[in-house]
Amino acid sequence: MATSGRTDPASPEELERIWALVRNWGRWGADDERGALNFLSAERCARAASLVRDGLHLSLAHDLPVRPSPESPYPAHHHMLAGGDARDASGIPGYEASSDYVGTPVHGLGITHIDALCHMFVRGEMYNGVPASEVRSNGARRNSILALEAGIVGRGVLLDVPAALGVDFLGPAEAIGVEDLEAAERAQGVRVEPGDLLIVSTGRDARRRAAGGSLDPFREGLAGLDPRCLPWLREREIAVLGGDGISDRMPARTTPGWPFPIHQIGITGIGLHLIDNLSLTALLAACAQRRRYAFLCAVAPLRIPGGTGCPVNPVAIL
Amino acid sequence: MATSGRTDPASPEELERIWALVRNWGRWGADDERGALNFLSAERCARAASLVRDGLHLSLAHDLPVRPSPESPYPAHHHMLAGGDARDASGIPGYEASSDYVGTPVHGLGITHIDALCHMFVRGEMYNGVPASEVRSNGARRNSILALEAGIVGRGVLLDVPAALGVDFLGPAEAIGVEDLEAAERAQGVRVEPGDLLIVSTGRDARRRAAGGSLDPFREGLAGLDPRCLPWLREREIAVLGGDGISDRMPARTTPGWPFPIHQIGITGIGLHLIDNLSLTALLAACAQRRRYAFLCAVAPLRIPGGTGCPVNPVAIL
Amino acid sequence: MATSGRTDPASPEELERIWALVRNWGRWGADDERGALNFLSAERCARAASLVRDGLHLSLAHDLPVRPSPESPYPAHHHMLAGGDARDASGIPGYEASSDYVGTPVHGLGITHIDALCHMFVRGEMYNGVPASEVRSNGARRNSILALEAGIVGRGVLLDVPAALGVDFLGPAEAIGVEDLEAAERAQGVRVEPGDLLIVSTGRDARRRAAGGSLDPFREGLAGLDPRCLPWLREREIAVLGGDGISDRMPARTTPGWPFPIHQIGITGIGLHLIDNLSLTALLAACAQRRRYAFLCAVAPLRIPGGTGCPVNPVAIL
Amino acid sequence: MATSGRTDPASPEELERIWALVRNWGRWGADDERGALNFLSAERCARAASLVRDGLHLSLAHDLPVRPSPESPYPAHHHMLAGGDARDASGIPGYEASSDYVGTPVHGLGITHIDALCHMFVRGEMYNGVPASEVRSNGARRNSILALEAGIVGRGVLLDVPAALGVDFLGPAEAIGVEDLEAAERAQGVRVEPGDLLIVSTGRDARRRAAGGSLDPFREGLAGLDPRCLPWLREREIAVLGGDGISDRMPARTTPGWPFPIHQIGITGIGLHLIDNLSLTALLAACAQRRRYAFLCAVAPLRIPGGTGCPVNPVAIL
Repeated sequence: MATSGRTDPASPEELERIWALVRNWGRWGADDERGALNFLSAERCARAASLVRDGLHLSLAHDLPVRPSPESPYPAHHHMLAGGDARDASGIPGYEASSDYVGTPVHGLGITHIDALCHMFVRGEMYNGVPASEVRSNGARRNSILALEAGIVGRGVLLDVPAALGVDFLGPAEAIGVEDLEAAERAQGVRVEPGDLLIVSTGRDARRRAAGGSLDPFREGLAGLDPRCLPWLREREIAVLGGDGISDRMPARTTPGWPFPIHQIGITGIGLHLIDNLSLTALLAACAQRRRYAFLCAVAPLRIPGGTGCPVNPVAIL
Repeated sequence: MATSGRTDPASPEELERIWALVRNWGRWGADDERGALNFLSAERCARAASLVRDGLHLSLAHDLPVRPSPESPYPAHHHMLAGGDARDASGIPGYEASSDYVGTPVHGLGITHIDALCHMFVRGEMYNGVPASEVRSNGARRNSILALEAGIVGRGVLLDVPAALGVDFLGPAEAIGVEDLEAAERAQGVRVEPGDLLIVSTGRDARRRAAGGSLDPFREGLAGLDPRCLPWLREREIAVLGGDGISDRMPARTTPGWPFPIHQIGITGIGLHLIDNLSLTALLAACAQRRRYAFLCAVAPLRIPGGTGCPVNPVAIL
Repeated sequence: MATSGRTDPASPEELERIWALVRNWGRWGADDERGALNFLSAERCARAASLVRDGLHLSLAHDLPVRPSPESPYPAHHHMLAGGDARDASGIPGYEASSDYVGTPVHGLGITHIDALCHMFVRGEMYNGVPASEVRSNGARRNSILALEAGIVGRGVLLDVPAALGVDFLGPAEAIGVEDLEAAERAQGVRVEPGDLLIVSTGRDARRRAAGGSLDPFREGLAGLDPRCLPWLREREIAVLGGDGISDRMPARTTPGWPFPIHQIGITGIGLHLIDNLSLTALLAACAQRRRYAFLCAVAPLRIPGGTGCPVNPVAIL
Repeated sequence: MATSGRTDPASPEELERIWALVRNWGRWGADDERGALNFLSAERCARAASLVRDGLHLSLAHDLPVRPSPESPYPAHHHMLAGGDARDASGIPGYEASSDYVGTPVHGLGITHIDALCHMFVRGEMYNGVPASEVRSNGARRNSILALEAGIVGRGVLLDVPAALGVDFLGPAEAIGVEDLEAAERAQGVRVEPGDLLIVSTGRDARRRAAGGSLDPFREGLAGLDPRCLPWLREREIAVLGGDGISDRMPARTTPGWPFPIHQIGITGIGLHLIDNLSLTALLAACAQRRRYAFLCAVAPLRIPGGTGCPVNPVAIL
């Protein structure tokens, strides 16, 4: 099961070649802001709906973290505006209501979220060659999360890499190579196809449980994909890439200038929307039980004008 | 097309009778927090998935309002944390990213959101007889939005009441009666069934367009359901009620003590999760074009511990 | 009492001349970030302390607005984190506490606040010629509010212009000229001196009361200083300029390119920290009663790294 | 230098006696919300102003923490709304401005803040016997920070306890006894008098520096006053108590039911406003240099309706 990715980091030259190779800029027009989502046609969406058998649906998200932890040093805020003790604060007789406020930084290692294509730049440019200056201090003017306003509904495919490798979870900073992805395909009897939402498990939830309930990804690292998977991701024409980590491994300082190559090249070059920090425990169990790893998947980010991403609660329907 | 609801407000005695009649407390056990969602079985979810034909999917949400307006006096906050000019602020060579923060009050007339069952009280009690004191200043301990953690996926049915009544939109504060709902069913050739997400259009979007793009619901009012629809909603065993308004009409001071009876009795008594302020323009057109008003519908609130609701982007898949 | 300022707007040429004339760039060194505050020496601060007679101290701030209004379309947020009902939420026996969160946009017409020198630019430059790009999406790197970290303590001088003109308050969009300021000096027997915190009343509080408690400055306008006062403000070597409005009059579209010349030229050119939206009712009464218009004044903005200003509660000690 | 406080924790019985002994409830009327601030008369304020000599003024606050740390697990938020790149976002020709948003939890170990009298309860009651239920989920209706709307201006007295004890700083969880406070008075030639803002240094800043710049008070503890100082604090009739810690020592689990007795009894019983987490480095140096430990001190919390406290930047004027 050893992969070159786990033993031998890609060189800057290799990453430059990959960067040049996989870029989809211009492929769907100069104004395109949907990137690889273009692979997910209505027809493929309809076909994905036909995968539903029992109607079981599962959340792929963690609870929004409202307490600081090593995974969430910047937690979300959930503030009550009126609780039961102020239920009649409106002054309207009979009107008794509670209400609250929720706020959160979008991009965090403990927050299940999707990245808009404006989230990453390579040398000052985002997807489709748009200059970084289009992401202003008052919001993104191009490649914002509004490109996903209708949500993403398509075929989700889960690859359980630890299971294919015969382990409970990958170690911190381990890299998944193409051979691992294909091993999981074979083991599971499934194939990643154009337009798919590919979801890769590194076993982070199991690793957290084994560690007593808490991880510190900034100190310990996080397993992820070797950047040499990028050409494969493009060839397979996936629409979205999700994972229980951040798809990239951490720390990923192995290749100078490319600390997070899946983010850098995947988002910026391929136009891949990434979903980070999925909670896969329930989905892994449901798929294993059914020996079925393809399902209908729906992701519906809020419509945030100028947003660089959004916390989401992706749902798998089996 | 005149309905009693539009001309003759329900009396307090009628509402007391309805309140006593429709209550589902205890029906699904003393600890139940899902209310009418219990009508939406996995089997019904699976059947809803089989409704998908072309794979077109549509957002039923408005953009999150980030500027104040009469519909959103308390808008959401979208704050950039790093724009293109700070893309290299991480100090990691090569890592260029933007990021942001999003926060919002949950319950607002310009915010597409779903209400948790802890959002409303009647005389100090919420759904299933839970005391209001369980919604504390640091969050709801019962009936929170976490009851919806797996999202809602089922059969959406749109009733286009203005079309059935031959108007572009209902006037402010007009009330929809049972006969209007059934007129829409007949006109559309559809029937609201157990477990459905019932979505009622009052034509608010059209009314806003006719008004030049902006409404002031606090001054002008908002069309909604007559409270005498409540027994019908319970008999039909719908799982969720959504609308382009707030399901209740405003101002609804007609019946003393029952200013928002659909919220008060629907949420608290029946255990109905309400989805408020949907944007239905695209769905109305898509349904009319296909002469098909039932579809797969997915709603996935964020998992907010203790939350009284959540902004959502419901998606219809046709 | 008519002043040229009130009848005859300054021309662009005049404002260009004023802009060139009053600039203090370089005066206190190329790295200076305190601007006109340099006029307020320790000696002058000590002398101001000697003005205190009775020890009466007064707030010059409004309550932080937590509800939207025409003056505060973007109000502050005050959110409880734990009220009396959650006073024992800590889990520490005996520890019973309440706590809360407060947040606010800094610059608003209903928020008493001080502007940092990075708040305004003229043609892409701030005070002392620092380029606008130094105010990044993650904070100001120059001319931030931290230049005021030790607070401002000095001689406050109140000029009651409406009293000097024999009116209760100035009309919306009326302009105060140099002759009005000097008329107030004469009427009050006081002279604005180097290092002073000059506070100019336009009678906004009285105007609000006369209007029934609420103003709409965006529609109705706001009285302020004629830009031809700028050379006078510089000659007098004041350290800080405060007012019950925003020192500028609104709407101030009279001179193309110079919509808010006191802000534009005062902050950027002279290096004047402006304090906007003071509440002067109590101070006006206390000064009139004592026939004394000079007092000790303390302003202590929070130390916000990278901040463009801060809400404040300035205190006058008589 | 050993004090009983440092070696021998107070018993629950002792604390009950102190609690009964020091209570000021009713002393200034049943509706009083200012507590010990009543000791600070206008005359005493005026006398404090006469202490000013050189006019040097110093901040006693830390920078608002905007990054998480062990001292600030819940940091403040400073979000730009418009930076230099969006300076012309207003659409008004010539108007170029930056703006931002600042928000913060009020009570935190890394945030310099003042506690309102509604911040603490003893057995469900706050200062003056007001029930805890008056602090609702939508704000405090009694004893809020608005009691301080005019700010606090008076005589500050700094007691440098470590210097009096011949050490650089107190160890974590060390307790200061009455004899230590009086030793500092003697060593410094100063006496704490009625109406004073008493500021006690435990050397926290020096301890942080010695620890390399960072402390973890939750793990390591924090020096503070022995609760047997409470009668002394009341006898001396101080108006406000401030410190570089939280006045209480941490962990303070030594006396069951009284984990933070200075907060519990000081705020609730005596009606003392506490100022926590002062930065005293500059003040300690300035006082030592001048051999003068009394000065004018101004604290001006924002006027937050219903607030339980406020971050502040207290200023000492020497």
